[in-house]
Amino acid sequence: MKDLCPVKWKSGKVRIIDQTKLPFLLKYLDIDNPKDMEEAIRSMAVRGAPALGIASAFSLVLGAKKLNAKSPDEFLKKLRRLAKEIRSIRPTAVSPSQIIDKMLETAIKNKKEGIEKIRRILFLKARRFAEDSFEAERKMGEIGAKLIRRGDRILTYCNAGALATAGYGTALGVIRAAKAKKIHVFVPETRPKLQGARLTAFELKEYGIPATLITDSMIAYFMYRRSIDIVLVGADRIAANGDTANKIGTCGIAVLAKENKIPFFIVAPFDTIDMKIKNGSKIQIEKRDPKEVTHIFGERIAPDGIAAENPAFDITQSRYITGIITEKGTIKPPYVKNIRLFYKK
Amino acid sequence: MKDLCPVKWKSGKVRIIDQTKLPFLLKYLDIDNPKDMEEAIRSMAVRGAPALGIASAFSLVLGAKKLNAKSPDEFLKKLRRLAKEIRSIRPTAVSPSQIIDKMLETAIKNKKEGIEKIRRILFLKARRFAEDSFEAERKMGEIGAKLIRRGDRILTYCNAGALATAGYGTALGVIRAAKAKKIHVFVPETRPKLQGARLTAFELKEYGIPATLITDSMIAYFMYRRSIDIVLVGADRIAANGDTANKIGTCGIAVLAKENKIPFFIVAPFDTIDMKIKNGSKIQIEKRDPKEVTHIFGERIAPDGIAAENPAFDITQSRYITGIITEKGTIKPPYVKNIRLFYKK
Repeated sequence: MKDLCPVKWKSGKVRIIDQTKLPFLLKYLDIDNPKDMEEAIRSMAVRGAPALGIASAFSLVLGAKKLNAKSPDEFLKKLRRLAKEIRSIRPTAVSPSQIIDKMLETAIKNKKEGIEKIRRILFLKARRFAEDSFEAERKMGEIGAKLIRRGDRILTYCNAGALATAGYGTALGVIRAAKAKKIHVFVPETRPKLQGARLTAFELKEYGIPATLITDSMIAYFMYRRSIDIVLVGADRIAANGDTANKIGTCGIAVLAKENKIPFFIVAPFDTIDMKIKNGSKIQIEKRDPKEVTHIFGERIAPDGIAAENPAFDITQSRYITGIITEKGTIKPPYVKNIRLFYKK
Repeated sequence: MKDLCPVKWKSGKVRIIDQTKLPFLLKYLDIDNPKDMEEAIRSMAVRGAPALGIASAFSLVLGAKKLNAKSPDEFLKKLRRLAKEIRSIRPTAVSPSQIIDKMLETAIKNKKEGIEKIRRILFLKARRFAEDSFEAERKMGEIGAKLIRRGDRILTYCNAGALATAGYGTALGVIRAAKAKKIHVFVPETRPKLQGARLTAFELKEYGIPATLITDSMIAYFMYRRSIDIVLVGADRIAANGDTANKIGTCGIAVLAKENKIPFFIVAPFDTIDMKIKNGSKIQIEKRDPKEVTHIFGERIAPDGIAAENPAFDITQSRYITGIITEKGTIKPPYVKNIRLFYKK
């Protein structure tokens, strides 16, 4: 099987899969400076909240290596500026901000050790984060797979697989872990960027898991025909009350699932829960170039001059969510109370 | 303004707009035989339930002109065979079947008049049908426009405009009739065939009505942000209990509208109600080539070998429908009772 880890430290550089080329070409990019990594994040060559966290951490490592500074203080000042830039590119996912905060804290705590030592500590921190993330995903897969029954027909959305994460997957990690149960996966294409058609379909093919591609507009049809047993999706940020930001389109699926009494689960690292955010209305939604709507693969699909909007995420209110599967276990409603309890675990 | 009537009798031929080329090219096809018309229907060069009815009627006229028959009986037999072929191409819409039935009845009733006279009667019947349909659409527009308030932000879906009908439109006819009320229209692209992005966006631009193109996956987002005041869509067939077949994706929009307390209206000619069909589960759903899902404009968007499904319509259960706007007036729930009452009007 192909190695689908989207971000990897390799001989002093960061090797990413250029996901804009998938599924047609499995192309790697070796990145050795933060500017190129920022561009890769912006163009979605690397995407998915957990993968963005790892990419941001390694980007800081690359930046730290090249920073010219006469003192640890100057070094830290420049590091902070770099952190601010990376953080601002895709604001909805919480993972980049969190790991960047932790990296900066570590750097500050080790200021007295000198610049070279800080560089080394930052690298170890980033690498450890990638390894821990992968382990957490395996654990989520194991926990989530217990919810899957033999023969279940699972709907996922966008791509929450190896390509979006540390290399195992969140929602798609559960699906991988449940492969032996003779499952079938429905894959909505996920306009505008087609992560379902391009990435999830590609991964499922690699894993040998039977799948059916549909358009986003067909989800209700298959639910009303009783062709979907359970929905599993990822998350970019979860508020303290369980409201969840995920790829645009997720919220509509959750409403349809509830209407059809189909369980709807979020699968995400526990850290995706942002206790600083009280509810979904406080999560910043990234707006992307309207050209992603008016064009597909660079080809215009609509008349010239038509206005378009392109919010990249939506908020699924927690009342539509059956449970949140994390590496610490599955959180069930009432979320405000149970998320707090999980924090004490 | 450009003439957007999709099907027109012109100097012994049927002139259609080749809608597969829109919005990039306004190309006409002059069709002089049923085989070519069948191909135009199959490829969706002509589409939309009311327009398909008119195209089917004129196709029968073209066929009747060329039929070689020694007696009216032989003529009728061949005409019936032709009717069967046209009818089978796109089975979900009721309009083609209805007008074909009426054309055949007329032919049988006038059997004694001789073949040449039957041909003439069939032509007059088809032309009359097209004219009456246009008038009915104007009337629907007038009735529906009364439901629109100043400044309303309207969501429509697929294309229920001039291009889908006798030339005025159903859902988009209401929008045209309400233009002076400073409305704004949200246009989901409508995958797989992109009738929203290609046709509705094109029409609204022609009419000078402000519009925003979105992907189908963004509908819930804009509803939860309170950016949509009312939903207006067309219909391909309506069962006796109000359940409605329309473009795949409609049913999900109706559920979301109800969840957000947004009025959801069907706009369709009264004849779209098929009293022979008790409820939506009895309506035949056309399945189209999965290639329409795996490809966009002939370009592959998903990995080779992935399975796909392509139902062209879905059923919106009547409990999600606020009202059905027809040329006879707006039918409100309870539908079983009120549809019967309207039939007596």
